[in-house]
Amino acid sequence: MPNLHLVLVHYPVVNKSGDVITSALTNLDLHDISRAAKTYGVASLYVVTPLKDQGRLIERLIAHWTRGAGAIYNPERKQALELVHLKESLHEVVEDIRAGSETGDSPRTVVTSARNNRRAIRFSELRQRLQNGKDYLLIFGTAWGLADSLISEADYILEPVRGMSGYNHLSVRSAAAIILDRLLGQSN
Amino acid sequence: MPNLHLVLVHYPVVNKSGDVITSALTNLDLHDISRAAKTYGVASLYVVTPLKDQGRLIERLIAHWTRGAGAIYNPERKQALELVHLKESLHEVVEDIRAGSETGDSPRTVVTSARNNRRAIRFSELRQRLQNGKDYLLIFGTAWGLADSLISEADYILEPVRGMSGYNHLSVRSAAAIILDRLLGQSN
Repeated sequence: MPNLHLVLVHYPVVNKSGDVITSALTNLDLHDISRAAKTYGVASLYVVTPLKDQGRLIERLIAHWTRGAGAIYNPERKQALELVHLKESLHEVVEDIRAGSETGDSPRTVVTSARNNRRAIRFSELRQRLQNGKDYLLIFGTAWGLADSLISEADYILEPVRGMSGYNHLSVRSAAAIILDRLLGQSN
Repeated sequence: MPNLHLVLVHYPVVNKSGDVITSALTNLDLHDISRAAKTYGVASLYVVTPLKDQGRLIERLIAHWTRGAGAIYNPERKQALELVHLKESLHEVVEDIRAGSETGDSPRTVVTSARNNRRAIRFSELRQRLQNGKDYLLIFGTAWGLADSLISEADYILEPVRGMSGYNHLSVRSAAAIILDRLLGQSN
């Protein structure tokens, strides 16, 4: 079983104009991506925001579904949202995974992007690498995508999801679902 | 290019207890599924609700993003939401596709479900069938899924998406994205 972790980043990401911003939480991101993560046996889903009030909102959402009324109303949501952990930076996420790793190694970081990049590795290559027993951290951006600084620092860049048209504007929820299926889904 | 149409059904669907209900619209369903549909070259995304007030809400949402301020703010959303058509019943959807078809044939209907069914066909089989030039209508349910009556009337039932765990509770947004990728995505 691969040791794959996900992180959904709210900073540093870019807006429509390409400026680096901190994005606001979209509740359904946590619901949809945690449910997909649970489906594909992902170890954890980190959520990064440096904003304290946004962090409190995320903690409340997690508490409602994992320990509050939501946990009784919908146990399947509970199982999914139990995978979610809040951190203030990507650095903290990497440290948390390293601290929990049997080998004490930092995870290999893999950024996802809708844009082509010369360094990009193919889905088939990453799918194979995930079988090598090491920890991997797959990084998703909100808003108009991850800031360039974060992309250039990652160990790997995953090729974009391509459909049948030139149109390339999936939501992060849809992209995460497709990417998990391509990396970990049962072949049909 | 396959002639694939999608429909998102709000009636007849079931609630948590298995009762047949009419579900309420989730705005992000239309955004996410239309963007995925556009990415994979789907011909149209129908939305079915028999409720007049829900229909008006859906029409307003479509108008905002295709002809209103949203169309200028975000042209990519415009392209996606232009695929969306409102109908009051699945019957109306089938009639609309038939009327637009060159052959005058009704589309083959294919229901999606998270549950196993003895009649289910594999993704690989449907992927191949989609190349035969006929119209296909892929049916997605909201809430806790499509009512049994609708499932039993369909021409085909598509096998469930399976991940790596027994957990099987994807959102309809995630399931639609994965299913389109399996049926129409470029192999990697």
